[in-house]
Amino acid sequence: MKKITLIVAAGTGIRMGSSVPKQFLPVNGLPVLMHTIRIFHFYDPSMEIRLVLQESEIANWEKLCAEHQFDINISVYKGGDTRFQSVKNGLSGIPDQWLVAVHDGVRPLVSRETIRRCFENAEQLGAVIPVTGVKESVRLINGEDSVAADRSLYRLVQTPGVFHSGILKEAYNLEYNESFTDDATVIEAAGYKIFLTEGNEENIKITSPVDLLIAEALLK
Amino acid sequence: MKKITLIVAAGTGIRMGSSVPKQFLPVNGLPVLMHTIRIFHFYDPSMEIRLVLQESEIANWEKLCAEHQFDINISVYKGGDTRFQSVKNGLSGIPDQWLVAVHDGVRPLVSRETIRRCFENAEQLGAVIPVTGVKESVRLINGEDSVAADRSLYRLVQTPGVFHSGILKEAYNLEYNESFTDDATVIEAAGYKIFLTEGNEENIKITSPVDLLIAEALLK
Repeated sequence: MKKITLIVAAGTGIRMGSSVPKQFLPVNGLPVLMHTIRIFHFYDPSMEIRLVLQESEIANWEKLCAEHQFDINISVYKGGDTRFQSVKNGLSGIPDQWLVAVHDGVRPLVSRETIRRCFENAEQLGAVIPVTGVKESVRLINGEDSVAADRSLYRLVQTPGVFHSGILKEAYNLEYNESFTDDATVIEAAGYKIFLTEGNEENIKITSPVDLLIAEALLK
Repeated sequence: MKKITLIVAAGTGIRMGSSVPKQFLPVNGLPVLMHTIRIFHFYDPSMEIRLVLQESEIANWEKLCAEHQFDINISVYKGGDTRFQSVKNGLSGIPDQWLVAVHDGVRPLVSRETIRRCFENAEQLGAVIPVTGVKESVRLINGEDSVAADRSLYRLVQTPGVFHSGILKEAYNLEYNESFTDDATVIEAAGYKIFLTEGNEENIKITSPVDLLIAEALLK
C-alpha cells in the first residue's frame, strides 16, 4: 500500500511558558519539527509528508525553512481549533487504500523501528498505535481518594498511529466529540478496532522545558 | 517531628544490560546513588540517612566512597530479596513519632520542593507519596483488546513516600504479599490511608540506558 505521513504541529505552545510554539523551539540548533520531519523523510524519501500548522505560523515556518536551508519537500495544511480538526484538514484528498501515519510534530525521537512496526502492522490490521508500558506504580483517583491500579494493565500511547486511509477518513468524518482525545478514540467511535504495537522509550512528546533538555541529550 | 531518610538501593540492575547495579553507574562523574544521597543531605544536613544495599555490594560501595572522597555520614543496612524486605531491614530501631522518607536510590533528580512537600504533608496526614499526572493518552488492556482510559484519573507514583514511623513499622510487620509493589500498597494493607502530593517531573527512576542519558542532561 502507498504510504503518506501527516505531521500535526498546530499547537500553540502555551504550556512551555514561551511565545514560540514548542514545535519551533531549537534542539541542538534545529527546530524540533525539522528533526521530526527528517526522521520520516529518511525512513522513506519517496513518501509524501504533509505538515499541519496554524495559519498564523505558516510565514514563520517558511522563514525557519529558509534560515536552516531546510529543503525536504513537504506540503503544508492549515490547522483547526482542535487536533481533530487539524488531522481532518490534513486528510483532504488522500485516496482510499493508502496507509496514513499521523504523528505529533513534537515527537522528534520516534525510532525508525517504531515507524516500521506501525506501517507493517497497520497494513494487515487496519489501525495500529505504538505504546509503551508504565514504569511507575499507578494510582487511580476516586473522588477524594486514590487506589492502587495494576500498572501491568496500562499502556501509554505514542505516535505515529498508522491507519488505512479509508478507515481514518471515515472516522474523521464523524461529528466532533470531546471524548476524541487522540486518533484511537476517533477510530473506535467509528466502530473499528485499535491494535497496539511497541513504541520506543525515547519517543517522548515535548511539552515542557524539561522535555526539551531531554530531547537535546537524546538527539546528540 | 524528627526526620530520617531511608534510601533503598538493593536492586541488581539486570535491566540495564550491565553488570554494575544501576545505582552505582556514573552520571556526570559521580555514581547515581551519591547524587541521590547529596540531595537529601543538603536538604537537611542534620537528618540521619540510612542506605540499604545488597550485602554483596557493600564492599564495592565503600570502594566508591573512597574513590570519590564521599564523606556524607550515612549508615548502611543489608537489603533483602524483595524491596519489602529491604525497607523492613532499614526500619530497624527507628522510634515511633518520627517521620521516615523512603526513597529509591535511582531517583537522583528529586527536587528539594518535592522532599519538603512530602515531609510537611506527612507530618499532618501520616502517609504521603509524591505523584505526577500522565501526559500521554492511556490504554487499559482487557484480555486481547484494549480500551481508552481517562488519563486525568491516573497518577504515576514517585518517591520519597514520607510516613509516620509508627504507621510504616506496623505496615512492614505484615506478612509479605505479592501485591506489595510499593510503600503505598503496604501501608494500605495495614489499614491506613495514602495521601498524594505533587512530585516533580524530572524525578525519574533510572532503569534503562536512556534514563541514564536523561539524568546526565538534567543534572548538569
